[in-house]
Amino acid sequence: MSDEVEVPESHPRYHSLLTRHRIEAGVEKGITSQQGLIAQGRGEAFDYLLGEETIPSADRAARAAAAALLRADQPVLSVNGNVAALVPEEMVELAEVVDADLEVNLFNRTEARIERITDHLREHGATDVKGLTADARIPGIDHERAKVDADGIYSADVVVVPLEDGDRAEALGEMGKTEIVIDLNPLSRSPQVASIPIIDNVLRALPNITDHAEELAGASGDELARIVDEFDPDEALQDAERRIRTASESGG
Amino acid sequence: MSDEVEVPESHPRYHSLLTRHRIEAGVEKGITSQQGLIAQGRGEAFDYLLGEETIPSADRAARAAAAALLRADQPVLSVNGNVAALVPEEMVELAEVVDADLEVNLFNRTEARIERITDHLREHGATDVKGLTADARIPGIDHERAKVDADGIYSADVVVVPLEDGDRAEALGEMGKTEIVIDLNPLSRSPQVASIPIIDNVLRALPNITDHAEELAGASGDELARIVDEFDPDEALQDAERRIRTASESGG
Repeated sequence: MSDEVEVPESHPRYHSLLTRHRIEAGVEKGITSQQGLIAQGRGEAFDYLLGEETIPSADRAARAAAAALLRADQPVLSVNGNVAALVPEEMVELAEVVDADLEVNLFNRTEARIERITDHLREHGATDVKGLTADARIPGIDHERAKVDADGIYSADVVVVPLEDGDRAEALGEMGKTEIVIDLNPLSRSPQVASIPIIDNVLRALPNITDHAEELAGASGDELARIVDEFDPDEALQDAERRIRTASESGG
Repeated sequence: MSDEVEVPESHPRYHSLLTRHRIEAGVEKGITSQQGLIAQGRGEAFDYLLGEETIPSADRAARAAAAALLRADQPVLSVNGNVAALVPEEMVELAEVVDADLEVNLFNRTEARIERITDHLREHGATDVKGLTADARIPGIDHERAKVDADGIYSADVVVVPLEDGDRAEALGEMGKTEIVIDLNPLSRSPQVASIPIIDNVLRALPNITDHAEELAGASGDELARIVDEFDPDEALQDAERRIRTASESGG
C-alpha cells in the first residue's frame, strides 16, 4: 500500500481520506497499534465537529509553536505510532526547518516497534532518530512509559508531542519544558497542560508550523519572544470548544 | 481474553472500560475489523460529549423501539462485527423477548467473518442465526453490501440496525421498513434516516430496549401504536445534539 491516496487535494474530504489511508498502511507495517486505531476514530469525531479545517486560533497556536521552536536551544519532536503513520515526511520537514531532533516515544513501548518506526521515518528522509538509547526517565510516571533519551526529550527545552497521552504530557510539563501538544480534543488533558495547545489535525498542523517557521526564519529573538508571549493557551482551548459547539449546532 | 472486565459496575467508567475490553477481544477473535476499531473511537468521542449516560430522549426512543418491535410481524436484528463483539448476549436477549430473528450483516462481508460472528453469537446463547443464505438484495446499493437473507432482513417489517453504515440505512428505509438505528453521533446519516434513532451507546441501549419490551409485554396493540406514533425522531436528534453542546460547554 502506498502512502498516498488517488484523490485530488481539492476533494472536500481529501485530508479525511488521506488520514484513513495512512493509518491503515501503518497497521499493515506494524507501526500503528489497536489503541492507535481507536484514538484515530476519536480524532475523526472531533475533527468532524471542528469542520475539518484549521481554525484561526489553531493557526495562531501553530505560529507560536514555530516561534518557540526557532527560539529553542534544544527542540525535540516526539513521534509515536500514529504520528509516524500519519505524518512521517511532515515531521522530518519540520525537524529540518527548526533544527530539531526526532525521538520515537511509544505508549506501548517495544524495541521492535521503535525500530519499525525508526525505519519508517528514515524511509521518509530522517537521518538521525533518537529513542532507542532510553538512558533517562521522565519523573513521576511509571517505568516503561518514562523511558527517554538523555540527550533527547530528557534534556530538551522545547518538545512537540502530537497525540500524546495525558499522564506523560503532564509529567513533561512539570519538568519545566515548553510543551507543544497537537490534539483534536480541546477537553482532553494533554492540550490542557500544554504551553502551546494546537487543536487541529496533525496532517494540517505540522505543515502549518513548518510554513510559519520558514516565514519567521529571519525574525529577531525579540520578535519570536513576543509571538510566544502573546499566545494565550486558555483562549485557544476555549475557542476550539466553542467551535465544536457551533459546528454541531449547524449540523456539521 | 474473557468477555468481562474485573471492574465493578458502580465504577464511573465501567461501560467505557467494558466497551474497550470487548472490542479488543473482538479483534483477537477476528470479528472486529480495523474499520470497526476506528468506528469505536468515533463512538467514544461522542459518548464522552454526551456524558456517557442514557439521556431522557434516548430512553424514550428505546421505549418506542420496544413498542415497534412488539407490534412487528417480522422483526429482525442486524448484527455487524462491532455489535457482535460489544453486545452478543444483549442482542440474543432482545431477540428472545421480542421474538425477532438475528441476522449477521457486514460492511466488509466475507463468509469466514460471518461464520466467526455466527459462532460467537451461538456461544452467547443464539440458536438460529441468519445471514449466510444471502439470497436477496437490498435495492440501490452495490452488490456485496446489498446481500441479505430473503426470509430475514429482506422481508422484515421492523429492523434494528445498530452502528449501521449510512448508505445501507438509507436503502433499508427506502424499502419502507420501520428502521431502528442505534448510533452515538446524532449528525450522522444513519440515525437521520431512521424511523426511530436511539442516540446512545449500544451497551446501554440494547438492555434498555429489552427492559422496555418486558414492561410492555402486556400492552394492547393500540397502546403500542400510540407509543410509536408519539415518538418524534427529529426531536430526539435535536435533543442529543443539544446535549453534546452542553456537555462540551461544561468541560465534559
